[in-house]
Amino acid sequence: MNTASQTPRQMRRLERREKRTSLPLLQHSAAVPVNPWPPVALLSTDELQALHAASLRILREVGLRFLDAEALQLWQAAGARVDHARSHVWIEEELLQQCLATAPQEFVWRARNPQRNIRVGGNAIAFGPSGGMVYVTDLERGRRVGDSADYENLLRLTHMLPMLHFGNWEQVTAQDEPVSTRHLRRLYSGFTLSDKAMLEGAQGRIITADAVEMARIAFGGTLPAEPVIGDVINVNSPLTYDDRMLGGLITYARAGQVCIITPFILAGAMSPISIAAALAQQNAEALAGIALTQLVRPGAPVVYGGFTTNTDMRSGSPAFGTPEGAWALLAGAQLARHYRLPYRGSGSLTSSKLADAQGATETMWNLWPCVLGHANLVMHAAGWLEGGLTVSFEKLMIDAEQLAMFAHFMRGFPIDDSSLALESIAAVGPGGHHFGTAHTQARFDSEFFATALADRTGYDSWQAGGARDTAQRAHGMWRQLLAQYSEPPMDPALREELRAYVARRSIELRDAQLFT
Amino acid sequence: MNTASQTPRQMRRLERREKRTSLPLLQHSAAVPVNPWPPVALLSTDELQALHAASLRILREVGLRFLDAEALQLWQAAGARVDHARSHVWIEEELLQQCLATAPQEFVWRARNPQRNIRVGGNAIAFGPSGGMVYVTDLERGRRVGDSADYENLLRLTHMLPMLHFGNWEQVTAQDEPVSTRHLRRLYSGFTLSDKAMLEGAQGRIITADAVEMARIAFGGTLPAEPVIGDVINVNSPLTYDDRMLGGLITYARAGQVCIITPFILAGAMSPISIAAALAQQNAEALAGIALTQLVRPGAPVVYGGFTTNTDMRSGSPAFGTPEGAWALLAGAQLARHYRLPYRGSGSLTSSKLADAQGATETMWNLWPCVLGHANLVMHAAGWLEGGLTVSFEKLMIDAEQLAMFAHFMRGFPIDDSSLALESIAAVGPGGHHFGTAHTQARFDSEFFATALADRTGYDSWQAGGARDTAQRAHGMWRQLLAQYSEPPMDPALREELRAYVARRSIELRDAQLFT
Repeated sequence: MNTASQTPRQMRRLERREKRTSLPLLQHSAAVPVNPWPPVALLSTDELQALHAASLRILREVGLRFLDAEALQLWQAAGARVDHARSHVWIEEELLQQCLATAPQEFVWRARNPQRNIRVGGNAIAFGPSGGMVYVTDLERGRRVGDSADYENLLRLTHMLPMLHFGNWEQVTAQDEPVSTRHLRRLYSGFTLSDKAMLEGAQGRIITADAVEMARIAFGGTLPAEPVIGDVINVNSPLTYDDRMLGGLITYARAGQVCIITPFILAGAMSPISIAAALAQQNAEALAGIALTQLVRPGAPVVYGGFTTNTDMRSGSPAFGTPEGAWALLAGAQLARHYRLPYRGSGSLTSSKLADAQGATETMWNLWPCVLGHANLVMHAAGWLEGGLTVSFEKLMIDAEQLAMFAHFMRGFPIDDSSLALESIAAVGPGGHHFGTAHTQARFDSEFFATALADRTGYDSWQAGGARDTAQRAHGMWRQLLAQYSEPPMDPALREELRAYVARRSIELRDAQLFT
Repeated sequence: MNTASQTPRQMRRLERREKRTSLPLLQHSAAVPVNPWPPVALLSTDELQALHAASLRILREVGLRFLDAEALQLWQAAGARVDHARSHVWIEEELLQQCLATAPQEFVWRARNPQRNIRVGGNAIAFGPSGGMVYVTDLERGRRVGDSADYENLLRLTHMLPMLHFGNWEQVTAQDEPVSTRHLRRLYSGFTLSDKAMLEGAQGRIITADAVEMARIAFGGTLPAEPVIGDVINVNSPLTYDDRMLGGLITYARAGQVCIITPFILAGAMSPISIAAALAQQNAEALAGIALTQLVRPGAPVVYGGFTTNTDMRSGSPAFGTPEGAWALLAGAQLARHYRLPYRGSGSLTSSKLADAQGATETMWNLWPCVLGHANLVMHAAGWLEGGLTVSFEKLMIDAEQLAMFAHFMRGFPIDDSSLALESIAAVGPGGHHFGTAHTQARFDSEFFATALADRTGYDSWQAGGARDTAQRAHGMWRQLLAQYSEPPMDPALREELRAYVARRSIELRDAQLFT
């Protein structure tokens, strides 16, 4: 269209339409935010020491089970007391401290696109999408078992959303793919549809070995010195590391890839009911797994993860977004800092079945503590519903805007002569207004966080626009976003090599037992 | 019903019904929570000083307008430079500091029921309901102009909800009452339907004088030494105190009642667009009003209020629950602490038209900073919608539960031998579970925050229960609550005296101009 032939009115209309389609959610910074303020500390030094001392006693006196022969051998070789028949290991403080000494305080997680590398540690707070869901839901199609198309669409959205800093992850299981080849397809899509830092389930040795191999291909044939892939190692609390997780831990750590050691504790079920006990146990479990990564490969990148919340004692269900969970998040961050380790928290956890008020408040009970406590990796930061069974396209949008708000919040605001604008205050004086001043006009478009989702119109306009709630507004947004997706560039030779790897391994793994 | 004749199964059913009707929302503590952790500080000492210095320059060089003759005389008598023709006052630092020196660092706001007295200051964080709404909404009747029945129902709910610590307030205007007598009816209902600490609009001298007189009656004929009533004094920003607010300020301060001095600043409209300038101006405005209360009566209880947020520059509407608002809340708290003054924040501010995800997230962008920054009085802590035009019965319930969660959060968790439960951890060992242990069973009912609103059931149960969202669940809750309301006791003679006062003044004020 030739702008010269348009009236000013037509041009304004066009500009407005342009603005509408430029998707404000994509305008936010993609930089990993850094929290400039000291982390909020719940625990006194004495309390921190009490938790530390209690976890040392658990490691030494109670011990843990490691259901994997190689893990038991590693512990024995390092001098721990091991009961092979019972797969039981007791860990003394000295050995623990030796192991912790080699764990890096922070590291860089490389992405295929170097601009999307993320720093893990310090005061950097990186957000990633949800993972591990069985169901997917959106307002049009409703709740259903996830398939490849859903998995790939969630990947595309994660790739596009600038406030998600990492994480091509198995957001939803592609149930239409055979189990034996699912991870291969998942990795292929992950590496080709997005160029952000990659996660792949630490489920045994086969999947993780394939993940490392495909990462090697995606990175041009040689793994970089920094890690490029990894995932969560969940402890089977209380005090048990199962064979799948240990196979994943050993494979990733040996390859210098990321292990995010995360006890999964619902206080009252997997630990004693009191949060102090849950934290002491969490700490013992996390430190044991972290130590093991260092026995596998000193210096292997590792993250201290916390996923401790309470049980709903009436129903036996997990309770997410609770005061107890917030305590655990903040205290867990303090513990990780005490050991000079990066910390992993979780963002959008909720039991709600809808992207409604419960979904939002429970999410905020996680996100605020993550930001305040300096959780370096905030996993599941957007899209969770239903205790992690379902990922919601609409909640992904709603949470993503919250993440962008937190990133903006962490930038803080300058206090200097220019921002204090005393001449402007004097010039307007009492009783005037500041809409039209040069100071305000110069910053009109850029000063404030620009919301894509909040409706600030008057009641009548809102009614006239269909009286839509937040989730309904978010629905249009993700569809619009997906429509604008374009694949990030990749060397065709690498892509072909990935494809060939998948083809070859798909045949090899046809009848394999994967989770060993 | 004779329990002896019941089967165990019937008894369990009865107990369950009993539990359902005992309204979990009423089980929470009514104590004003105290934040045990240091307040979150955004500003460095230098930044705080820069804001302080900028506001001193505004007071000295730009000055403020005080649109009330008595206020101008007070300033002049105290030695300030006053331009009576322009109602303009310039304030030097020395005078300001003299005034601030007599303002109390904290005080007790007395309620008719002494158990409901609230401490204002220190690390105590008291929550109150919304005020000043024109419309009221609930899921059954929809949005409508408020009337006396709505006003009284909101009063009853405020009275019952233990997490609302103060505030019989004009939550919604009773449009069915004539303007001239509305405040009299409002005060009468406030004093009789609830025994919590009372607020009454600081609108000129007549309303506030009636408020003080009726408080005197309600408190048995003599005002206690501590304040028993008061309200917000909004600054007509930029830099203007209007006649209504000054009449209220002078009347309340003279009677030793509470003035909550609150500049109402939307950055970009009532102040320069930058948050630093908005805060410098807020600080100048707040300090000027606080100083005036001390000129009226040295030692008068006064609160430093902040209500600074940004304008939505596209629509010109206020933007609530934003990162900018959170900065202002936290920095405002630091400024108030710097002057050793109690601080007032706001809780449930939102632009949303519904108790949906937007309503919830925006509310949490206020509540977290209020709690973290130690806002001593959190006004509008529950029920806001639509930028303060509408109060929602359902959102009142949703927000109230959040307040209870914050109160629980602030209690923290003990770390001691009992809570660390090392014997329990050892006894269960790796791989077991803690549901049935003596440690867990002894704390089964009391350890965790008990939610009334969050749905943690599985998807199928939730579907079978009607697939209700949070607001729908909240609807049943406030209706159930109201049905259980009973009026707090009051000496019939005092009640009669209040009634007679209202009757007499209703005649006297029939044709009065109230807002002077």
